[in-house]
Amino acid sequence: MSAFDHLDELVPLRIWPGVVGRSMTSELATLSYLELEPDVHVPEHQHVNEQVGVLIRGSLRFRIGEEERDLEPGATWCIRAHVPHQVWAGPGGAGLVEVFAPARDDWDDRERLAPGHPPLFP
Amino acid sequence: MSAFDHLDELVPLRIWPGVVGRSMTSELATLSYLELEPDVHVPEHQHVNEQVGVLIRGSLRFRIGEEERDLEPGATWCIRAHVPHQVWAGPGGAGLVEVFAPARDDWDDRERLAPGHPPLFP
Repeated sequence: MSAFDHLDELVPLRIWPGVVGRSMTSELATLSYLELEPDVHVPEHQHVNEQVGVLIRGSLRFRIGEEERDLEPGATWCIRAHVPHQVWAGPGGAGLVEVFAPARDDWDDRERLAPGHPPLFP
Repeated sequence: MSAFDHLDELVPLRIWPGVVGRSMTSELATLSYLELEPDVHVPEHQHVNEQVGVLIRGSLRFRIGEEERDLEPGATWCIRAHVPHQVWAGPGGAGLVEVFAPARDDWDDRERLAPGHPPLFP
């Protein structure tokens, strides 16, 4: 199996309504490129996986624990295990890169999107 | 401590000559934004940390094990533990997001750059 791939070749999964993820999983972590549709809200949730990310394009309002911020590209966040978080995409949507550790093996059951959902980046 | 930060607030470390990294470290992984100067070569090396990444801007020639590829933005790679790899930046340099797992605690001794090395992204 090749060590190389490309965002537009990775299987797009519907992680939440209005959220598409393209992921690479190693033994210990999952690196995902996630795209949020404009104005989508991901409701508060939590998981054992640590979640560290950087905003690549668009804008987000992110709430982590009791802290809430409006984020522009270049913003970063670090969510410890089991800390509740939720997010709202801005009017132009958002594209972000996040690592989850341990790997997100619970995403195996997410809906696989048909071809025709090309990523907006690059 | 805040869950939020920004690439231009993270301490830039000189990871290799011509390679600056800005990192967020959780318990299990390090997420880094790395910038390579034009035409820099990172010599072959290996480490216990898995390394999964995506190219954000610029171009790279990447060699992982016996496989070598020229990469454009959106390209991804997954380097398993202890697999030798090396990389050459293109004439415009490169900016990439990578996860390392376990976290890169060996980067603590890298040179901290003085202010005045703002990231090229965003």
